[in-house]
Amino acid sequence: MSEVKLEKWNDLFEKRIFAGLATLMPDGSPQVTPVWIDYDGKHIIVNTAEGRQKDKNLTREPRVSVMLVDTENPYRYLEVRGKVVERTNEGAADHINKMAKKYLGQDVYPFSQPGEVRVIFKIAPEKTNSLG
Amino acid sequence: MSEVKLEKWNDLFEKRIFAGLATLMPDGSPQVTPVWIDYDGKHIIVNTAEGRQKDKNLTREPRVSVMLVDTENPYRYLEVRGKVVERTNEGAADHINKMAKKYLGQDVYPFSQPGEVRVIFKIAPEKTNSLG
Repeated sequence: MSEVKLEKWNDLFEKRIFAGLATLMPDGSPQVTPVWIDYDGKHIIVNTAEGRQKDKNLTREPRVSVMLVDTENPYRYLEVRGKVVERTNEGAADHINKMAKKYLGQDVYPFSQPGEVRVIFKIAPEKTNSLG
Repeated sequence: MSEVKLEKWNDLFEKRIFAGLATLMPDGSPQVTPVWIDYDGKHIIVNTAEGRQKDKNLTREPRVSVMLVDTENPYRYLEVRGKVVERTNEGAADHINKMAKKYLGQDVYPFSQPGEVRVIFKIAPEKTNSLG
């Protein structure tokens, strides 16, 4: 499948938008939760902690959908469907600090729990739906 | 299954929040799109037009998840997982006007397309996840 680029929606990834991340539960039913979101020009990146439901769902089943609604105009939105192509701890601790800078204006992620291990999921976009 | 009540989150349903509605595509992958949302004290109600992807997905597969993020505090959110228990045209035209009043402050839904037939889906809540 040819690579799907998201450049024209770069502004949505630059804003402090809480994306809706839809994953699949073990029984195949959908789950959707708000997440901090990043785009590196190729992959959508989600950062979570090991052992959470998101980690379990994304590790078991790569198919996801991500929704970004423009905070300045809710009738403008982007949905990206795609697949997890990589799960890694590498760079995940630095990346959550980058997300804290974006979403909180803080240099260091302030919500770390004792023993928490961060993990990054890289999602390859396959299809987009958008409005506005 | 005993009925799951959402009263304590009534304020989220009163605000102009665009909910993230996660449904399943024919291949079982998740879809998520922003929707106007209503709660009648028993069911979550989604109003769409016949023939849209949402209509097709909700008619084929009753399992859904709905996410509401508080517009005043994005770290407060509610996720409701549940099942579609009814699909009906009855009252759907009136209901979309009620939604237009809530979301647009207008008495009549202004975006109707020629030949469009509105349809209501009633979702029975089964499980909630929330933060804040």
